Amino acid sequence: MTAMTSSDQRERPGRIMSGEMAEQPEVLQRILTRGAPRIRQIAAEIAARAPRFVLLTARGTSDNAALYAKYLLEVRLGLPCGLTSMSTTTAYGARPDLRDVLVITVSQSGGSPDLVASTRAAREAGAITLSVTNNPDSPLAAVSEFHIDVLAGPEKALPATKTYTASLLSLYLLVEGLRGGDGAAARVLPALAAEVLARQDEVRQLASRYRFAVRMVITSRGYGYPTAKEAALKLMETSYIPALSYSGADLLHGPLAMVDNISPVIAVVTDGKGGEALQPVLDRLRGRGADLVVVGPAPQVAAASAGFVLPTAGVVEELQPVLEILPLQMLAYEVTIARGQDPDAPRALAKVTETH
Amino acid sequence: MTAMTSSDQRERPGRIMSGEMAEQPEVLQRILTRGAPRIRQIAAEIAARAPRFVLLTARGTSDNAALYAKYLLEVRLGLPCGLTSMSTTTAYGARPDLRDVLVITVSQSGGSPDLVASTRAAREAGAITLSVTNNPDSPLAAVSEFHIDVLAGPEKALPATKTYTASLLSLYLLVEGLRGGDGAAARVLPALAAEVLARQDEVRQLASRYRFAVRMVITSRGYGYPTAKEAALKLMETSYIPALSYSGADLLHGPLAMVDNISPVIAVVTDGKGGEALQPVLDRLRGRGADLVVVGPAPQVAAASAGFVLPTAGVVEELQPVLEILPLQMLAYEVTIARGQDPDAPRALAKVTETH
Repeated sequence: MTAMTSSDQRERPGRIMSGEMAEQPEVLQRILTRGAPRIRQIAAEIAARAPRFVLLTARGTSDNAALYAKYLLEVRLGLPCGLTSMSTTTAYGARPDLRDVLVITVSQSGGSPDLVASTRAAREAGAITLSVTNNPDSPLAAVSEFHIDVLAGPEKALPATKTYTASLLSLYLLVEGLRGGDGAAARVLPALAAEVLARQDEVRQLASRYRFAVRMVITSRGYGYPTAKEAALKLMETSYIPALSYSGADLLHGPLAMVDNISPVIAVVTDGKGGEALQPVLDRLRGRGADLVVVGPAPQVAAASAGFVLPTAGVVEELQPVLEILPLQMLAYEVTIARGQDPDAPRALAKVTETH
Repeated sequence: MTAMTSSDQRERPGRIMSGEMAEQPEVLQRILTRGAPRIRQIAAEIAARAPRFVLLTARGTSDNAALYAKYLLEVRLGLPCGLTSMSTTTAYGARPDLRDVLVITVSQSGGSPDLVASTRAAREAGAITLSVTNNPDSPLAAVSEFHIDVLAGPEKALPATKTYTASLLSLYLLVEGLRGGDGAAARVLPALAAEVLARQDEVRQLASRYRFAVRMVITSRGYGYPTAKEAALKLMETSYIPALSYSGADLLHGPLAMVDNISPVIAVVTDGKGGEALQPVLDRLRGRGADLVVVGPAPQVAAASAGFVLPTAGVVEELQPVLEILPLQMLAYEVTIARGQDPDAPRALAKVTETH
């Protein structure tokens, strides 16, 4: 997103969302500079308590950030993890024994009553509670033993963008801190994010293939899978195109029947083991004549119908998701504009969702 | 599904799937009679080892059965649970410390190499391993410390039906066994399942509203949520209609923008706390003029656009999923027939999926 003049901003739909997308390099830099020391300190305190299991609780976009953290915690730390089925606590009153358990709750607003209730219940059940929010004054931050502020600044667009990447980076630094690392590998991100965001014309070109799409399938494996889920959510809440996300392995277990040469597929291919594990799925999709757009390294894009080359050289696989989602946020935005809708005004949504 | 003459069977598409759906009451009875004692014994041996945490591993339809078990384990036993992200083991080589952890792997065939590999790795990492399959001679059964045979008999249709309900009941009996119960509440199921399956004409009537649908949304909360996911999968793999499933709470966090008076919604409403927690979502959907079809108790169906009344009197909430899925399996079948396709021959699918 390049800077817009103020008359553009008044006239162009989606200016709030595009403005917040454009802030992402600055937000990432802010986390590295201002947020990292505090995250490292929290990580050290939690590591000293030696949790055996981790439960992650979140909804919507934050749930995709939580899933990213699950991969990091399992692969990098060897800690068994689960994503909470929140209604077990809030509707059924389950009170599991949570000693030795770290409960991480991720929420942009920190205001959703069910997240506050389930975090309070977890703390009463003996868990170490950590919330990750964009509002240190939120009820969720208040009820948690530890709190990480993702420092994204106020987010006004209904489709969350900058708080997603801010949550990913904050969670990465947390897990690195739990391992005793310094998170230095993340320093390349702000400049690369700015590079990616400047390639708006390429994304607009890609968006033209989806203007009349009636459904889309988005797939990935490993660290890229949360990106596929978040891209599907973003496309649905802005453009209303039904976008189905599957891990590559699950896609072969049934939903592949839906994919043919009129159902476009977007594959998020990380440069690393997740991307390697996805290869048989990509081969199968090509064999079926699917319209396959790849977000990933150059050779993967070259072997697809079209794509967006991600700068992955010098970026460890586990940090690529912070960059991968950027062209897909832009794609959701551009497809929505191309369809004559306003990305800032999705039907029916409120910014803070009051689920109980 | 009523019995068909042999000439019908030769001529009618989908006869394999409909035949297997029709076997479900008999399979449920077989599990209660022949399977239950062995399941109770396995449960007692596992309970004596006092696991602190449960990880569930599965794909496709079996993953929805695993999610059902997650609700049971959390609500009925108070054990924190997680669904495995399999690639953390198979692609990234994560080797978490799994002492005190019960790892349950659910698979119809017991033949998928990645499930075998991840179960073997879990056992080496100290986990108590239990597999739940329809094939006691499978590699997965061989590699697991404990095995439960769901006794569904050979399943030949590509869309899994009888192995799903067989897995649900087997997992219910397991969890009841872990609690020291006898699972007597399940005895009502075979007769009620037969009643539901006999109401084919009602389902055919419902199917007519979806013949030209280009997308569907299926929602639920609590114990009914795995049903919503399984119904979406069934619809997609047979009819190819993109069917999106969301927990009611997640639906309000974004995808609601996709729902309007041309996007039909199916709500699975349990008679119990899950159904109560879903009420605000149903009110919101009615307020938006959504076409809302309910599978659930009579008053819920009466307040919707249409529906299928489920016999819930005398059925505890946690067993209702075994019945809820039946009209939705039938719906997937009937919608597919109405669209001139063959439910027995989904494009691109193989019965045993070889993901690695």
